Formats: sequence, structure tokens, C-alpha cells
Amino acid sequence: MASIEFGHQKHATQFIKMKHDFAALKVNQDRLMQAIHEGCEYGQAHRYGDHPTETGMARLSLNDADKEIRGWFKTTVESMGCAYSVDQMGNQFAVRPGKNRTAPPVMMGSHLDTQPTGGRYDGILGINAGLETLKVLHEHQVQTEGSVGVVNWTNEEGARFPMMAVSSGVWSEAVPLDTAWNLSEVSADKDGIKHTMKQELERIGYLGEQRASYKDFPFAAHFELHIEQGPILEMEKRKIGVVKGAQAFKWFEITVKGRDTHAGTTPMNARMDSMLCAAKLIVRANKIAKEKDGLATTGILNMAPGSINTMAHTVTFTLDIRHKSDEQLAKMEEDCRRQFQDIAENDSEKGCSLEWKQLVDSPAVVFHEDCVAAVQDSAIEVCEELEKTSADGQLWKHMISGAGKSLRKMIEALPRRP
Amino acid sequence: MASIEFGHQKHATQFIKMKHDFAALKVNQDRLMQAIHEGCEYGQAHRYGDHPTETGMARLSLNDADKEIRGWFKTTVESMGCAYSVDQMGNQFAVRPGKNRTAPPVMMGSHLDTQPTGGRYDGILGINAGLETLKVLHEHQVQTEGSVGVVNWTNEEGARFPMMAVSSGVWSEAVPLDTAWNLSEVSADKDGIKHTMKQELERIGYLGEQRASYKDFPFAAHFELHIEQGPILEMEKRKIGVVKGAQAFKWFEITVKGRDTHAGTTPMNARMDSMLCAAKLIVRANKIAKEKDGLATTGILNMAPGSINTMAHTVTFTLDIRHKSDEQLAKMEEDCRRQFQDIAENDSEKGCSLEWKQLVDSPAVVFHEDCVAAVQDSAIEVCEELEKTSADGQLWKHMISGAGKSLRKMIEALPRRP
Repeated sequence: MASIEFGHQKHATQFIKMKHDFAALKVNQDRLMQAIHEGCEYGQAHRYGDHPTETGMARLSLNDADKEIRGWFKTTVESMGCAYSVDQMGNQFAVRPGKNRTAPPVMMGSHLDTQPTGGRYDGILGINAGLETLKVLHEHQVQTEGSVGVVNWTNEEGARFPMMAVSSGVWSEAVPLDTAWNLSEVSADKDGIKHTMKQELERIGYLGEQRASYKDFPFAAHFELHIEQGPILEMEKRKIGVVKGAQAFKWFEITVKGRDTHAGTTPMNARMDSMLCAAKLIVRANKIAKEKDGLATTGILNMAPGSINTMAHTVTFTLDIRHKSDEQLAKMEEDCRRQFQDIAENDSEKGCSLEWKQLVDSPAVVFHEDCVAAVQDSAIEVCEELEKTSADGQLWKHMISGAGKSLRKMIEALPRRP
Repeated sequence: MASIEFGHQKHATQFIKMKHDFAALKVNQDRLMQAIHEGCEYGQAHRYGDHPTETGMARLSLNDADKEIRGWFKTTVESMGCAYSVDQMGNQFAVRPGKNRTAPPVMMGSHLDTQPTGGRYDGILGINAGLETLKVLHEHQVQTEGSVGVVNWTNEEGARFPMMAVSSGVWSEAVPLDTAWNLSEVSADKDGIKHTMKQELERIGYLGEQRASYKDFPFAAHFELHIEQGPILEMEKRKIGVVKGAQAFKWFEITVKGRDTHAGTTPMNARMDSMLCAAKLIVRANKIAKEKDGLATTGILNMAPGSINTMAHTVTFTLDIRHKSDEQLAKMEEDCRRQFQDIAENDSEKGCSLEWKQLVDSPAVVFHEDCVAAVQDSAIEVCEELEKTSADGQLWKHMISGAGKSLRKMIEALPRRP
């Protein structure tokens, strides 16, 4: 990414009106990269090259490295005179006061924890970009209308304590506090003990007293800069994705039942081959997804009994379908259910039977248009100065997030503007 | 099956010439069924109905029940004055001498061991049909030209000692004696001990001294009556399959490599989805098999990493392809290899790579035309008297065996007639 800017919680018209005043406010790219690499000294792992920065990260939530970078975060924001607080889930909030101190702040942020084999930017970029924005405001002594801040959400990855976005979940009141506190870590320590989240929050000194709830610490808006996790921008040689929402998705487990007959003695037309049927269903789901401009994925498939010269009597596979529109996702599901049934009954020789089990139903989320407009305006401005690498010359693009639903939960919890 | 008769080791012309003399020689169906049920008292298991004969069988090779039925076999054949012998693999041979005692006998037979959840006819019918034939000859005091006998092959199922047709394999010199003797049973006994085949042969008193080799005990021909293991005769409402040979088959393990990207953030056209590719290959293999009048089966499929919302980077699946003709099987394989490559490169979005590993190559076997003719003549004669249940009125049918290769090994070992 060649340049980074943030949208602000202002109406697009306001933003354009005030543009002149902000002309000098540019991110210091060198400082930003330096801050990222400085923070990555805590918990660095998996060296892949000779350069000091050529490592991955293993900064599992609430481990010693996480404790250290949390201290670094606190020092950084306090050096700029931010109001700093920690809630019951260890979420760190830093707010740079604006003229209006009673309105909720516009927050930027992400998470500082990583996967055990994590990279140097996932989450980390979002925090550092927020901090760099505060630094620019601070060095130019800008007084903003409302307050602006940065948040570090605890265990957003869900890699150590197995619930993704658990602490933003508690803040948005989607997850009960006790559920979160009682989560046991995935792996035991060297003494065979699995600690809970609350124990580890206490151990590293981040069990705050502030209630973890958007009611006690409301946001006006939340912006998150994130590296692209899909390959779309890179493929199309664009620089910035302006995310308009999160796609809807559903997870299913589908069981195909046939008959386990012998590969050598059962003629093709006498078969109830559940693997062949499942293969046809997987191919069809992908065709439907393409037609509807959605996504379909089978990530797990099991078959029984599992012998080279015997057909499977049972195949179970997962189906993950996604679409940016709830309605289109419902149509994809409907098409899959109808066409799967047809394949099982009429295109599987002697026929197979199907069972559907829904595992997850996550509706689509549409971000607030003012927030999207603010990001879009910034993206347009930044991209004007850059070399036009994409086929159509446009370097930014509207996108729908394919990632998890933490943001969704938070957005839903945001107080709606009239 | 309404009636049972055997072909004899005679040229069809001879058989027809002598037909008149054999007119009275008919299988005693009641006696045959009685003998089957009598033998099934040794090792009966898995009751499924109230009638005494409504059980399955668990007569694992060389267990106590197998020892008992072997004794019953010996008593039965000796009561008819047969020459009886046991070889180093516990194979039991019973020969009823003909006029010409120097020519090798025509043997009938099968196996008395069963799967742990076996039925009452698989193998058992072949032995009993042979014994019934000897009884008919015996009670009519027929002196045959050559000698005629019955063989019981040890551990033909391979269920207890894990090598199918191992003892006929030693006799045909396809399996070394020591390899067979040293086979350990699949499951340990209550003391945790796994016995070898040799130990168990010794324990039940069936470690014979006769060398286990077709060179020491040659056959003129081998006939086996077997229940149908596929559904073809039943589907077509026919009574007898005249088996002309065994189909060719090959087993492969095919590895599809793609990339494990996220189900939510990877657009369809940017994917290297190894599961989708594998599904297309399985569907295509079945299409090719149908076109070529062969068989294709995928009985095992594994995928990694195995996560609902992540594409598999690697899918490995088995492919079992079969055809009665070696040439057509080679063409099926060629079609699969070419079309699979095309699908992986051109119909899998960003492409997947393929690796083929051949596990088994078992060429087709064609049975001797005189043997087939003898069975066919008997089948025609028997079927004349029965109700014509099939669509075309013919109750017998030429077939190709889809079962394993024990017979192939034995047939290959048979001395060829000029």
C-alpha cells in the first residue's frame, strides 16, 4: 500500500469544506514503518530472511510479549496527552480530546495479538495507523471538533482463547462477560495448566475496572485499516479497498447416504455411490456461486467406511456459502437445496439421500454511508497522486469484507445517527 | 439360484456325447441345503431371525470353529473313499479317483473361512457344491475318466491373516511359503498375543507335510461355484452367470495441490481450490468409465488442512478403475490422465497440480474356453427346465468376475493344455 489515510467521522460535505485546513496533515510513512517494526520486536518468531524485520509473529493474546507491547501502546498514547483507560476485558482505549468532550469519540484501531504463525501487519497495521494519525494531529497541534482515539481489542484473533473477537464482543454486549472471562486457553503450559482469560488478564495487569460495554464507553464511529486478506486488490493492481460492509454467510454440514458396495462387482447403473454424488454437489455449489456472484467452499469432507475398492455408504462435507446480499445468499441456498436434491435423486444412478444441517447463519452488514463516504473521499484524494497501475486507472475500489463478524457486532452496537 | 450343476473337465463334444449316461445324475437340493446348514453350525453368529438358520457366520480362518468344520470336511470325503491330504498351508484336498489315476484331477472348491461378519454361502457354497457332486457320483457308482476332487483353501478371505487368497497363492507359487507362515493375525487375543499363521496351523493340527505347490499337487482344471457378489443376475432376473474371466483393474492414489486461502476473502476466479478440482476429477472418471463400459470408484479421500472456511491446499484420493479388457483399461487410464490434467490446468480457476501414484496393476484373466464351454453347456441344460423370468427369456449370462485375483493366480499356474 503506497499511502494511508483515514476517513473521519464527518459528513462528506464537511470534510470537503475543511480540506484546505488538513492539506498539511500527511502520514509520515517512515515513522509508521518504524513503529510497526519496533512493536514487532515483542513476540517476533519464524525468521524467513536475514534482514532484522524478516520474521513472522507469535504474540498470543495476554502472553508476556502481549504485556510488553501493551506497555509500549500506553507509553505512546500518554506521550501525546491522550486519556487512557483499560476495561474488564483488557481492551485499551486512548482518546485525544476534541473541542466537544461530551460527544463519543471517533475511534480507530484493531488488535495487537497474532496467530501463533502470524504476520507483521494483521491487526498491527490497524493500531499503528491509528497511532500515526494521532501523532500527525499532535505534531500539528490540530484541535478536532470531536474526540479521536485508538483502541486495542484483546484476543481479537481467538488463537489463544478460542473465541474470535471475544473482547469487542463483550464491549458490544454480544458475549457475556463471564463467558469471556472463563475461556480456557487452547494449549496447556509446561505444568499442564490451562489458564482462563481472567487469570491471564490479572497476571499481566490488564484486568481493568472500566465496565466492558459500549454503554459505558460509546463510540461515534469505528474505523479499522486492515491489510487485504484476499488477493483482489493485488490482482487488479489497486491500492485501497473502501469497504462498504461485510458479506452474509452460512455454514452447512451435508450428509450424503448411499450404499457401500464393491468397486469390482457393482455395475455403474446399480450404484448408490455417495462420494460420486457428493463430488457432483460440490461442483454444482461452485457453479451456483459463480452464477450468483457469490462464494462457495467445501473445506472438510469425510467418508466411511474408507476402503479403496468399496464405495462409501456415507459422505459428510461442509458447505460455506457467502454473498454480499442476504437475499442473494438465500437464493443461493435455495438453488443448492433444490439442485442437490435433483442430483441425489436423478443423477446418482440408484439414488442417494441427503441431510442438511445448518451450522452458522451470519447475515450481511452494511456500514454507515457517512463512514464509507469519508473513507472513499480520502481514498480518492490519495490515489490522485499515484501511478495508475490498474487496467481502468482507478486505484481504489468498493469492497465487501469477507472476514469475520467482529466488526459486524461492533457496528450493530453503534448508536445510530438519525 | 434354482438349481446347481457343474461343468466337467471334458471337451464340450465329449460332454454332449456322454450326456445320456449322466441323465440321472442330479444334485440333491435338499441334501445340499442340509449340508450347508449343518456346516454353518460351526462358527455361527449375528442372529437376524428366529429360524435356526437365520444367522450370519464368524468362522475366522484357523480358529476353533474352522478346526471343527475341517474335521467335518475330512469325515465327509473319507466316507466316500476319497484320497485326502493336507499341505503346508492347511489346504485340504479330496480326490475321488478316476480310471486314469496318473492325470491331474479336475478340482472343485472354494473356502470355508468367513469374514467376521460373513454370510452362510460365500465360499461355503463352493465347497458344499463340490461335495454334493462327489456324493452324486458316489451314490451312482460312476467311474469318471479322470479323477475329480474338492479343495478347501485356507484363509481365502484374508480376514484373520491379512492377505487375501494367501494359501492358494502359495500353492500357485505367487506367495513365498515363509511370507504366508509369518503372517500375524489382525487382532490380538485376550492375552495381547497375535499368533502367526504357522502357529495357528500347528495349534489346530493342520500344518500338513505335503508341499504347498501346484508342482506337487497339479490340477487339470479348477471350478468354483460362488454366489453372485454383484447385483447383475438379480437385477436381470437370471439364474446363472457363466464366468469367462476376471476383469483388469488398476488402483491409483491421486494428489491434487492447490492453495489454502480463505473462503470469505478469495474470489472464485482467484482460487486454487483442490477440493473443487478433485470433485471434478471424480465426476469425470465416472463419466469416462461409463463411456468405456468400465468401472471407476473413489473409496478414500483425505483433505488438508480441513477447516470449514479454508480451501484445502491438498486433496488425496484413490481411484479404482476396472475393465474386462486390458486395452480398454489402458484407454480409460489414458483418458483420465489427459482429461484430469486439462481440468487441473484449465478448469480450476488459477490451476491445481496433480500427482499420480500407481498402487496396483492387475491385468485381465481369460479362463480356458473348454472350462467355460463345460459350464455353459450345463447352464443351458439346467435353465431349459426353469420359468423364464428375465426380459429376454435367457436365464444364464456370460459374465466377467469383478472379485479378487486368487483365481487368476491359480489359473495362471495351471498347466496349459496344447
